[in-house]
Amino acid sequence: MDEFLRKYQEFEREFECALARCCAEMNFQPKILADSMRYSLLLGGKRVRPVLFLGTLDSFGYDFRQEMNFALALECIHTYSLIHDDLPAMDNDDIRRGKASSHKAFGEANAILAGDALLSYAFDLLFDSCKKSLRHIEAAQEISRAAGAEGMIAGQSADLFYSGKSAGEKELEFIYRNKTGKLLVAPIVMAGILAGGETDKLRAFGEELGFLFQLTDDLLDVKGEQNTVGKTLGKDEKEDKLTCVKVYGLTGSENLAKECVEKCRLMLNDIKEMDSAFLKGITDFVLTRNS
Amino acid sequence: MDEFLRKYQEFEREFECALARCCAEMNFQPKILADSMRYSLLLGGKRVRPVLFLGTLDSFGYDFRQEMNFALALECIHTYSLIHDDLPAMDNDDIRRGKASSHKAFGEANAILAGDALLSYAFDLLFDSCKKSLRHIEAAQEISRAAGAEGMIAGQSADLFYSGKSAGEKELEFIYRNKTGKLLVAPIVMAGILAGGETDKLRAFGEELGFLFQLTDDLLDVKGEQNTVGKTLGKDEKEDKLTCVKVYGLTGSENLAKECVEKCRLMLNDIKEMDSAFLKGITDFVLTRNS
Repeated sequence: MDEFLRKYQEFEREFECALARCCAEMNFQPKILADSMRYSLLLGGKRVRPVLFLGTLDSFGYDFRQEMNFALALECIHTYSLIHDDLPAMDNDDIRRGKASSHKAFGEANAILAGDALLSYAFDLLFDSCKKSLRHIEAAQEISRAAGAEGMIAGQSADLFYSGKSAGEKELEFIYRNKTGKLLVAPIVMAGILAGGETDKLRAFGEELGFLFQLTDDLLDVKGEQNTVGKTLGKDEKEDKLTCVKVYGLTGSENLAKECVEKCRLMLNDIKEMDSAFLKGITDFVLTRNS
Repeated sequence: MDEFLRKYQEFEREFECALARCCAEMNFQPKILADSMRYSLLLGGKRVRPVLFLGTLDSFGYDFRQEMNFALALECIHTYSLIHDDLPAMDNDDIRRGKASSHKAFGEANAILAGDALLSYAFDLLFDSCKKSLRHIEAAQEISRAAGAEGMIAGQSADLFYSGKSAGEKELEFIYRNKTGKLLVAPIVMAGILAGGETDKLRAFGEELGFLFQLTDDLLDVKGEQNTVGKTLGKDEKEDKLTCVKVYGLTGSENLAKECVEKCRLMLNDIKEMDSAFLKGITDFVLTRNS
């Protein structure tokens, strides 16, 4: 098997074990709260953010098993954002990863609370890690900034704001950089902080990778297979969302994605202090993914 | 003027200054996100949680002005919880502090995001403080636990769950201890951690005070003046919420509140390492409040 895939699966497997342990400990009351948190965490998915974090640590020769709390916190925050994003008042999506989204399974009020609880839980995990060193505090703060009003939520808010409006490249870039980008940059930069690496270069690479990720996400909404992607497709056009397809057209977007991959490779070649093979692999993986 | 009130107003004034500075710095995009966060933060209120925190610090002779981040984080979390609690899917309340609640002013999607952003912002403030010392990390973790799935959200979830169901004392106590209690215990215990005080005794007192707070909250829903309280009254009965009035009756609840105050005073007499005058004052303040 391809060395990149072998590595990806190793990080994924380690992460799934940590997540399963974590979910097994969620036996608090009311049961419906714990059940709804667990349900969304265990719906599956590619675990891209934790894997990016663990893989970058590993590329620095850092023992990634030491920092599972960060990986878990990243996935909790990603999961909460999906739960709230799917709500009727937001994207109103009844399917997530091929199953009922949280508000379809547990009702709207419980879905709001499950999201809130996962966000709080993520920070609780991070405070545990903060006790280890100042670097850990800095790494944790990367997440709160990436997830907050100058990060992911700004992107969500802009995404809503520009739906059905006429807007262009600049607005699209704002949404991309924030909505998806910030929470893909964070795992890479956090790993760099912990390993004592050059965070500026890692951040620039992460931003490009995040851009590529959202490009391919928009393309999947148009060209993907419903069963493979696991969410309702064709929604962007129906809701007149501001996407790359709307701004650059289908071919234009595909060309932009290829340019992005080139930029990512050049940036990684310029980072000498770590083995960049895994991050190169993940770049190709994002380009060619079908879900 | 009464010494307690003078102190309360001093802490409140200092807090409002810090909050105003904080809100003035919220100039990020999209404007509607910053506006909605600011709107709810500046709706007013008694600022009980920050004042409890600052007042407890001051009672230990600790310079409370050094720890404004914690006070701000507490109010951000309280404010987010009110925004989400007022949503149509939750308590469906259009009025908050006598004005339009967030989803009436900005729409439901923006209200969800404003809440999410305030929660993330609170943790960002806390990570800044975490850099000061290990005690600061421990104090910060008090908040994430109090706000999370084994704290405030558990209480919210149980409150929803038991609406319209037959339940008694045990369930009522669970809701009280978690929904309101945990975020009133946290400021007191956090101050104790920072000042190096006996946190067990402070926690026990905080739990009793939190119980008293929710008792008087339920009583205000029955006996309060709409204009003074600033939220829709009589809702608990209409929605068949599990309240003290439902479990103990009106007189029974009033007697319970008086007993609570007595317990609070005894507990405070037992804490020798700090000046307990302010916390005694706040106990009476909670009992006799009309909003």
